[in-house]
Amino acid sequence: MSTRHEVQGIPVAELAETYGTPFYLYDGDALEGRMRALREAFDPRLEFFFSLKSNPNIAVCALLHAHGARAEVCSMTELLTARQAGVAPEDIIFLGPGKSRDEIAACLDEGISALVCESTQELALIDELARERGVRAPVALRVNPAFSVKGSGLTMGGKPRQFGIDEAQLLADPDLAARHPHVRLMGVQVYMGTRILSEQSVVENSTRIFDLAERLSAALGFPLELVDIGGGLGVAYFDGENDLDLSVLATDLNPVLAGFADRHPSTRLVMELGRYLTAEAGTYVLRVRYVKTSLGENFAVTDGGTHHHMAAVGIGSFVKRNFPMRLLSGAGEETGTETWNVTGPLCTPNDTLAKKIQLPPLAPGDLLGVDRSGAYGPTASPVNFLSHGYPAEVLVVDGRAHLVREPDRPADLLSKQRLPQAVLHARATAAN
Amino acid sequence: MSTRHEVQGIPVAELAETYGTPFYLYDGDALEGRMRALREAFDPRLEFFFSLKSNPNIAVCALLHAHGARAEVCSMTELLTARQAGVAPEDIIFLGPGKSRDEIAACLDEGISALVCESTQELALIDELARERGVRAPVALRVNPAFSVKGSGLTMGGKPRQFGIDEAQLLADPDLAARHPHVRLMGVQVYMGTRILSEQSVVENSTRIFDLAERLSAALGFPLELVDIGGGLGVAYFDGENDLDLSVLATDLNPVLAGFADRHPSTRLVMELGRYLTAEAGTYVLRVRYVKTSLGENFAVTDGGTHHHMAAVGIGSFVKRNFPMRLLSGAGEETGTETWNVTGPLCTPNDTLAKKIQLPPLAPGDLLGVDRSGAYGPTASPVNFLSHGYPAEVLVVDGRAHLVREPDRPADLLSKQRLPQAVLHARATAAN
Repeated sequence: MSTRHEVQGIPVAELAETYGTPFYLYDGDALEGRMRALREAFDPRLEFFFSLKSNPNIAVCALLHAHGARAEVCSMTELLTARQAGVAPEDIIFLGPGKSRDEIAACLDEGISALVCESTQELALIDELARERGVRAPVALRVNPAFSVKGSGLTMGGKPRQFGIDEAQLLADPDLAARHPHVRLMGVQVYMGTRILSEQSVVENSTRIFDLAERLSAALGFPLELVDIGGGLGVAYFDGENDLDLSVLATDLNPVLAGFADRHPSTRLVMELGRYLTAEAGTYVLRVRYVKTSLGENFAVTDGGTHHHMAAVGIGSFVKRNFPMRLLSGAGEETGTETWNVTGPLCTPNDTLAKKIQLPPLAPGDLLGVDRSGAYGPTASPVNFLSHGYPAEVLVVDGRAHLVREPDRPADLLSKQRLPQAVLHARATAAN
Repeated sequence: MSTRHEVQGIPVAELAETYGTPFYLYDGDALEGRMRALREAFDPRLEFFFSLKSNPNIAVCALLHAHGARAEVCSMTELLTARQAGVAPEDIIFLGPGKSRDEIAACLDEGISALVCESTQELALIDELARERGVRAPVALRVNPAFSVKGSGLTMGGKPRQFGIDEAQLLADPDLAARHPHVRLMGVQVYMGTRILSEQSVVENSTRIFDLAERLSAALGFPLELVDIGGGLGVAYFDGENDLDLSVLATDLNPVLAGFADRHPSTRLVMELGRYLTAEAGTYVLRVRYVKTSLGENFAVTDGGTHHHMAAVGIGSFVKRNFPMRLLSGAGEETGTETWNVTGPLCTPNDTLAKKIQLPPLAPGDLLGVDRSGAYGPTASPVNFLSHGYPAEVLVVDGRAHLVREPDRPADLLSKQRLPQAVLHARATAAN
C-alpha cells in the first residue's frame, strides 16, 4: 500500500465507490515485490512454485507467474486456472492426498512436470492411467518423514497422516519402481508444516529433506530430477509475531541449497509458497453499517465478516486474536483512541472481525481494512453462509485497478438450484 | 432413512452412481415428519419459521413450507429464495445485525410480516426508507436481554453483543416509537442461544421472553402483534448428547404458550427453527478413494471433507468429535470392527471427517454417509477451498430423487474471474 488510504495512488474510498463493499483489494506491486525479493535473496537454482490454494484468482496467478512463479495445484480447477494463467505444463506440479481419476488423467494429458503421489494405491492408479495412455507418468513421492521439526504453526512430519507415504515404508520397498512400469519415479516432496516464522526451522527442514531425498533415491534406485522442500513460510498476523527475515534465511539456507545443487546439478529445486507470496498484498475492505453500544462496549457492525474472511474472524483458533485492521476513510492521521468490536452481518456472535481493538471513532459509512488478507481469504471461507456469496476481487497493476472477480449476486446463488414439480405437488397435497 | 443403505426404497449406491460423489442427500419424508411432529406436539397457535441459514436450498424450503413452515431470512438471497419457494410475504420475517439499505428496501417493497430491528441506527434507516415509500414499516424489536439462560451451545443473552438493543436501553426510551413515525413497532424478538438440548432451558427462555415482551410493550406503548421466542432447538451429534424429547418439551411449554396466547389472542407466536428441522433429514455421501496405513493408523482418504462439511470436520470446535458415520455400501450388516481416520482431499491435516472411528473394513469405492448433516452443511463450509466448489444436493420426495442443486464445475469456478490485458502485458514486460 502506498499510503494508509491508497494503493498505487488510487484512493481506496474511490475503489469502494466503484466496486462496492466488501471487497478484496490486491496490490500488484506487492505481489511483484515479493517475487523479486525471493529471487534476489536465494540461490538462483531454487524455483518458486505458487500454491494456488492460498489465492486461486487467475489474475493473481498470472501476475506472479509474470514475475517468475511456477504453480503448485491441488484440484482440477486449480490446474485449469494455472494453465489459463499462462503457466506451462512443465512448470506445474499436482499435489493432494485424494486425487480423483479425472484429475490424474488431466495431469497426464497436460504433461505437467510431476504428480506428487501420496499413497501406494494412488501410485497403482497413476500407473494404470499412464498405461492406458501409452505414457510414463513423472511421479515425485510425497514422504511422511520419520522426523518432525519444530517451529511451524501446524507440524506435519513424524505423525500418522493422510499425506504421503511413511519414510520407513518406502525405504523397505526397493522394488516400488519395478512394480509400476508406466511410472517414472523422479522426485521427492516433503511438507513439514505451515506458518513457519523461524528461519532456522526452514533451514533445518530443508537440510533434512535433502538428506531424505538422497537416501530414498539411493534405496529405491530412481534419479532425483526434482526435490520439493515444501514451504510453509509464514507471515506475522498477530501481536508478538515477527515476519521472517529473508536475508537471515538466505544466509543460512543458500549454502544448503548450493551444496545439494552442486551434488545434483540437473535436479530442479522446488519451494512451495502460498501465504508468503499473497498475504501481504491483500486488504479486505469493508464498510461500517451501524455503530452501537451494548452493555458498555462499542460495536461497529459492518458489511463484511466470517463468510469472506474466516481466518481474520479466527474460527478454528483457540483464542480470538485480531488481524491488523485500520481505518481507510478520514484524513489518514487518526489514531486508535477508542476500543471497538468490529462485527459482521451474520447471525452468530462468532462473526467478529476484531475484538476490543483500538481504532479511531467510527461512524456508519467509514471504511475499514483488514491487512495481510491476500491469502486464505474468500477461498478458505464459507462464502455462501447466509447466502451472501463470494466477494469482488480487485487487482491494481501499473497504477490501474481491475475487477478480477465479479461478486456473486442473488441470481448466481439461485442459478444452480432446482425446485422440482414434485415439491410443488407436495405443497398442493399438504394444503388440502 | 428407510434402512441403512436406502432412502424411501432407493439405494444410496444408485444415487451415488447417478449424481456422482460427494453429494448431500435429503429425505423429504424426514423433513415432513419433523414438521408434523412439531405441529402435533405444540399449541396450535405457535407458528414455525424455518431459518433458511441452516439450509438455503429452495426445494428444502418449499417442502417445509408445504408442510406448514413460514420463513425467517437474513439476506437478500434468502428473502428471494423464500419468496420463490412460495412463502407469502406475511409469513416472512427478516433478521440480522447488519442489514443493508437494499435489504431493508426489499423487505418494505415485498411487504413482509416484520423487520426484526437490531439497533437504533437501523430503526432510523428503516424509518427513512419507509417514509420515502409512503408506508409504515412493521418492526419487531430484537432485544438483548439483561438475563441469560443456561443450557445452550452458544449463550447469547446478558452479554455485550452486536445483536439487538439492550433491554435497559429500550426500557429507558418510551419515546422510541414517537421519534419514528414511519415505523410501526409491533413485536419483540429474543434469541437466547443455539444447539439447546435441555427442554427446561427452552421453557425458561420462552417464559422470560414473554415476560420481557409484555414489559416492553407496556413501557414503550406498542401492541404485541408478534412475539418471536427465538429457537435454538438442537439435535444430538456426539456421544453423550441426547435429542430433545418433544413430548416432555410440549408438556412444559404448552401451558406457557397457552397462558400468553390467552392473554394476547391476536398476537402471532413465532418459533425459529433451522437445525432442528433439517439436520436429521440430511446425509453427506462420500466415496473412499484410497486406503492407507501411516505409522500404524488406518486412513480412508475420501472425495469429501472440510469444503463441504466444516461442522463434521469440527473446525471451530476445541476438540474433534465425530459426527455419526456409517458405511453405505456392502451388505448392510457390517459392524465397526476396525479403527479408521476418515479424511478428505484437502492438503491440511484438519481435513479429517472422523478420527479413530469404528467402521467395517474399508476399500476404495466404498460409500460412507455422515448422518445428521442436513443443517449447516455446504452453506456453512468453505466450498471454494482448493477450488472444489459446492456439491450436488439431492432431495427424495414421494419415492423419487430430484437433483435440487447442481454441483459446481471448474467452468463455474472460473466464470466470474477476469484476466486483464494489463496482467498479460506485465508478463511480457517481466519476460524481456
